[in-house]
Amino acid sequence: MADNKVMQSTLGALLESKKYSAIKDVLITMNPTDIAEVLSEVDETQLPRLFRLLPKEDAAEVFVEMDPDQQELLINAFSAKELHEVIDELYIDDAADLVDEMPANVVKRILAAADPQMRREINEILKYPENSAGAVMTTEYIAFRPDMTIKEAIDKIKRVGTDSETIYTCYVTDDKKRLLGFVTAKQLLLAKDDSEKISSLLDEQVISVTTDTDQEDVAQMISKYNFLAIPVVDKENRLVGIVTYDDAMEIIEEETTEDIEIMAGMSPSDANVTYLKTPVFDIFKHRIPWLSFLMLSATFTGIIITIFENKLAACVALTAFIPMLMDTGGNSGTQSSVTVIRALSLNELEVSDIVSVVWKEIRVAVLCGVTLSILCFFKILIIDMTLMHNDDITIIVALVVCLTMACTVLVAKTIGCVLPFVATKLGLDPAVMASPFISTMVDAASLLIYFGFASMLLFKV
Amino acid sequence: MADNKVMQSTLGALLESKKYSAIKDVLITMNPTDIAEVLSEVDETQLPRLFRLLPKEDAAEVFVEMDPDQQELLINAFSAKELHEVIDELYIDDAADLVDEMPANVVKRILAAADPQMRREINEILKYPENSAGAVMTTEYIAFRPDMTIKEAIDKIKRVGTDSETIYTCYVTDDKKRLLGFVTAKQLLLAKDDSEKISSLLDEQVISVTTDTDQEDVAQMISKYNFLAIPVVDKENRLVGIVTYDDAMEIIEEETTEDIEIMAGMSPSDANVTYLKTPVFDIFKHRIPWLSFLMLSATFTGIIITIFENKLAACVALTAFIPMLMDTGGNSGTQSSVTVIRALSLNELEVSDIVSVVWKEIRVAVLCGVTLSILCFFKILIIDMTLMHNDDITIIVALVVCLTMACTVLVAKTIGCVLPFVATKLGLDPAVMASPFISTMVDAASLLIYFGFASMLLFKV
Repeated sequence: MADNKVMQSTLGALLESKKYSAIKDVLITMNPTDIAEVLSEVDETQLPRLFRLLPKEDAAEVFVEMDPDQQELLINAFSAKELHEVIDELYIDDAADLVDEMPANVVKRILAAADPQMRREINEILKYPENSAGAVMTTEYIAFRPDMTIKEAIDKIKRVGTDSETIYTCYVTDDKKRLLGFVTAKQLLLAKDDSEKISSLLDEQVISVTTDTDQEDVAQMISKYNFLAIPVVDKENRLVGIVTYDDAMEIIEEETTEDIEIMAGMSPSDANVTYLKTPVFDIFKHRIPWLSFLMLSATFTGIIITIFENKLAACVALTAFIPMLMDTGGNSGTQSSVTVIRALSLNELEVSDIVSVVWKEIRVAVLCGVTLSILCFFKILIIDMTLMHNDDITIIVALVVCLTMACTVLVAKTIGCVLPFVATKLGLDPAVMASPFISTMVDAASLLIYFGFASMLLFKV
Repeated sequence: MADNKVMQSTLGALLESKKYSAIKDVLITMNPTDIAEVLSEVDETQLPRLFRLLPKEDAAEVFVEMDPDQQELLINAFSAKELHEVIDELYIDDAADLVDEMPANVVKRILAAADPQMRREINEILKYPENSAGAVMTTEYIAFRPDMTIKEAIDKIKRVGTDSETIYTCYVTDDKKRLLGFVTAKQLLLAKDDSEKISSLLDEQVISVTTDTDQEDVAQMISKYNFLAIPVVDKENRLVGIVTYDDAMEIIEEETTEDIEIMAGMSPSDANVTYLKTPVFDIFKHRIPWLSFLMLSATFTGIIITIFENKLAACVALTAFIPMLMDTGGNSGTQSSVTVIRALSLNELEVSDIVSVVWKEIRVAVLCGVTLSILCFFKILIIDMTLMHNDDITIIVALVVCLTMACTVLVAKTIGCVLPFVATKLGLDPAVMASPFISTMVDAASLLIYFGFASMLLFKV
């Protein structure tokens, strides 16, 4: 990116001094993704002029990589002919994304610029629910019949290959478009005898998804099986599209960012806009709901403390340990919940594993709780009692704190590992059960345990 | 996975009744990844017998997908000939991973079973530092000279293609092995005239990494540019290997899990072992260091409270708001730090952006702080003062709490967005600066602000 900043000012200067052929020579050496990055910072008035200098074969690729606001600007600046040239070069899934993101008047221009066939395919994709395999697939795949020869298949690739999203995995269907299997370009290229039938190469161990499979599951399957593409079929097992590995990588990145944001108590941000380009008010809107909810839910801890206020007044030393107990509880619970959430999203765990997970977490909690209690006991003995000469803190106080510590860790880890399963079972994203939410529950639990032990051991008479 | 559990018992039963040919027929319909999943649960004594029933061409692929402990078991069960057959079929990067993971006596057997050429290439890869491009690359790529014809190139693919990790992106080098550019199998297949020279197709906009590039950067580049593979060159720009998209997906998944674990206050777990297979004591070891450190660092909040103990005794009502203020501060800081950490790891931000990030976070913090303060004021008015009739809580107390709230959010968000940059600058993983670490700092800050305002407004006389 640092290089791209230099490139931006260079191109700006060349444009100022109208050195168009120099600009062309520079652009031709660059990768489309980098060109889009450079163009992302240029002036609104310069953008269409610079875009027109791009080599024709790169224009559509650069266009796809640009921010939505710049795409809109360009579409509005294009003549009908220019727009047609760009739209015509887009892959169907990218065109459908574009139509999905642009305002209505721009969509009208895009659809007018598309061929009837393309328009039909875009509408086909748009009818599927958001985040489903149908909505992210492309309809530009290569399909063979089983009785074609290898030579005929290669000839078909030569004919239609330029317009296909991938030529490396090709699908084999029957006369009703039902998916029979796949062949790879590698098999075709390596075949000794090209007069043999496609059916002789056909791999029938074909793994497919249906149009309503969640995009995250589609991406995880592509990653798990190391596929270049996965076929998407309808309810009658008819091939309707494919999802390719590059889309899978993007989906995984988006879904992970979403999970991380939810785990940190935020609503998911728009995947198409980077942090620096998101307006302050939008960031505020993503953050304030959880902050408000969690603040208000702290009313419970407030009430618990108020109830025990008189006892606290009698032994103020207890107050000093509240933050430590609450934080340790929160941290312990977060560790468990985040571990389970991640394992669920990588499909390493499923809901039926809950018993083994809880049993494992309880054993870990006992180990952690005992270790922390012992450590805490010596900490109180050495720091609070010996070094700081705090006479309010007696061995009994230390005992109350350490017992609370061990129990809080156990409760926190149990809550932490159970809640993500509960969320999954309820059809919610398990990530909502992470860190901030658990802290609030664990805070209340740890205070109740604390005052419980204090009542038993300190205030019993 | 549910399907695979059924499959496990089916195969187990078939094996018991020695129906070997039925097992063979079943296995042949399955994808290698699924076979590995099914085998992951079978009995130690059954495993080698089942593995021997696999179709030869699938055996190596299944082997690569298995857990390290099962791989070790199999290697020990193999005859020298069987081991040679499996090792011979492995891609070099997978073989190097295997050598890296196995204990010394097993490594000896593996290297003895490998051809001298393979042994040399494995050792070549192993000499690069862990997590570098050199350590994750494979040396099995296809390279052409620019003066070869397209026909000669296709013939070379036919000859060496089976042993190459990918045939879809091929590299063009000069006689000193220096990287000149690349051609794709698509270009070769679609070429009209196969007597033309490779140099006519050559794409010189080649983006490469060096052997010491961090694996995370390599994976991010493959994802950013939608590459199938990226070439790895040495300091003299000589091609030494490639990293393919499937390895990139795995690296991204591993690194993300690592980030999430670190953000939740854990040491990263072993990427090769799933949660359910990790022993309880290992999980304990990954969690206890941060828990202990954070517990001990809460000594500071304890000391702060102890110092103001007398004042707290005079107005015990203040204690009830401590958890709410600390949690809101922690949550606010976490939101900012996690946002920045994720943007840094996706390369959306770099260290030089710190000023714009801080300025943005300050504006977001002011909006959040003011909103939360107002909400909190009404909450105290309605719940604590009116509904609960808590006479200790006066308007002045409410004011102290709300002022603290606003200032804490501001401090928390500032700390939260600055710390990940500091970590990056220091060469640390920014993820260590997330949630638990920030909570501890923000806890101390919020208490100091709280007692500061309380001293000014409540205890001033």
